[in-house]
Amino acid sequence: MKEVYETTVRVRYAETDQFGVVYYANFFVWFEVGRVELLRQLGFTYKQMELEDDCHIVVAEAHCRYLRPARYDDLLRIRTRIAEARSRTLRFAYEIVNDATGESLATGETTHVVCDRDGHPRSLPAKYRKLFAPAHSASTVH
Amino acid sequence: MKEVYETTVRVRYAETDQFGVVYYANFFVWFEVGRVELLRQLGFTYKQMELEDDCHIVVAEAHCRYLRPARYDDLLRIRTRIAEARSRTLRFAYEIVNDATGESLATGETTHVVCDRDGHPRSLPAKYRKLFAPAHSASTVH
Amino acid sequence: MKEVYETTVRVRYAETDQFGVVYYANFFVWFEVGRVELLRQLGFTYKQMELEDDCHIVVAEAHCRYLRPARYDDLLRIRTRIAEARSRTLRFAYEIVNDATGESLATGETTHVVCDRDGHPRSLPAKYRKLFAPAHSASTVH
Amino acid sequence: MKEVYETTVRVRYAETDQFGVVYYANFFVWFEVGRVELLRQLGFTYKQMELEDDCHIVVAEAHCRYLRPARYDDLLRIRTRIAEARSRTLRFAYEIVNDATGESLATGETTHVVCDRDGHPRSLPAKYRKLFAPAHSASTVH
Repeated sequence: MKEVYETTVRVRYAETDQFGVVYYANFFVWFEVGRVELLRQLGFTYKQMELEDDCHIVVAEAHCRYLRPARYDDLLRIRTRIAEARSRTLRFAYEIVNDATGESLATGETTHVVCDRDGHPRSLPAKYRKLFAPAHSASTVH
Repeated sequence: MKEVYETTVRVRYAETDQFGVVYYANFFVWFEVGRVELLRQLGFTYKQMELEDDCHIVVAEAHCRYLRPARYDDLLRIRTRIAEARSRTLRFAYEIVNDATGESLATGETTHVVCDRDGHPRSLPAKYRKLFAPAHSASTVH
Repeated sequence: MKEVYETTVRVRYAETDQFGVVYYANFFVWFEVGRVELLRQLGFTYKQMELEDDCHIVVAEAHCRYLRPARYDDLLRIRTRIAEARSRTLRFAYEIVNDATGESLATGETTHVVCDRDGHPRSLPAKYRKLFAPAHSASTVH
Repeated sequence: MKEVYETTVRVRYAETDQFGVVYYANFFVWFEVGRVELLRQLGFTYKQMELEDDCHIVVAEAHCRYLRPARYDDLLRIRTRIAEARSRTLRFAYEIVNDATGESLATGETTHVVCDRDGHPRSLPAKYRKLFAPAHSASTVH
């Protein structure tokens, strides 16, 4: 099992600000893209998880460290891994890399609580735990 | 009854782009702020309309004409009026004005279909129609 | 020369709203993605156009007609064409299609004025006009 | 001198997501609103700081802890204070409170590097340092 799951996004004009770089909150949107694509690469979709299993990954904490600016039209590689998977909480770690230069632009982490549609905490269904566990065990080596 | 309902917003850094002006899609967010505050000034909230009456004003068409750029930290006045109120459709007209200079920055219009939570068209409840009607009759003079 | 230029985007959670569909202003962000990718497929980038030629395509008018909702995680196909290319103004036409079902979700248009970095109107450099012209002549057949 | 500077925002429909709450990245936009209004209450604007003094407060790190969901149309109180003010770095701390219930919805922090327009680190001009210092010394009591 792969440890780090990757996907790319291209910076949109909408995501820039008048300082000529990407506005800082947008990195958290890319983190969301990263974890959604990680789930897809593990064999399911977050959409199913919500619709079929009433299982929502609610954000409890989010952190980003900005190293270098992302700029308009840059192709960015989002590198995501599961930092921790417990029955009721999940933690993802991210790195945003400029795909052309290989430079690291930002690193971050989000912590999530598994909830039902009413926002009450619940356990992650076994079928997801099974998929997350090896991804996690692989990632704990580092 | 007033014809034009007003509210103000201050331009956020997040709303600017690297050309140094507000990104064009954000004017439609301000149009939303304008119509929500119009409803509040008519005596109810869009939140109630959704929650208590299962009445959603779904956008069917949106148009904006950009006259002058909006810039970071500008205080903007959103002037909204009901351009047309029918039992199943609503049309709002907007003007975005720089509050300091009085200059008109943009004009626009949105057309809406009244729907239930499943997206099926429905009639506007009588209590809302009653409120919209005079606002509309006033506005048709222009 | 192709008349319609295509690219795809996947709907982000950030782009949905509490009605369970994509918030209407985001279609204009996708229109931007569509025109940027059209330019790339014509052989240059909007980034170059701004940086190397001080040529900015400022939005003067934007319109969208919403036909069906776009939903979370949908893969969308953005179909863009040059509706009109003059020396000082450009008009793009868009269609957003659900890539899985082929259903048309929205159509739209944006009109742009070519400006320098200070926002003053200027002529489109000849090298761009040459590229746009055949794209336009092809599109005027329809 | 006040320690905590306050301003309010009302949650926009655009800021909600399909889970029925505010999308997590938007809290960072409100943090920006909080620090901009803190500066205004200290007697200047971030706009001036950028335009007149070529002084940009670039985000180096951002963190948010989500306690309770923010919902559509909620009036939120943003409580901002200067957690640390040095000659080249600034740290702001935030709390987002539901203004109707007084409940704390989120707390967060952002760290900034003072830069010129080219993104090179520089010292904060004395006139700003003078204003930040007492705000900071007041806040260090807690």
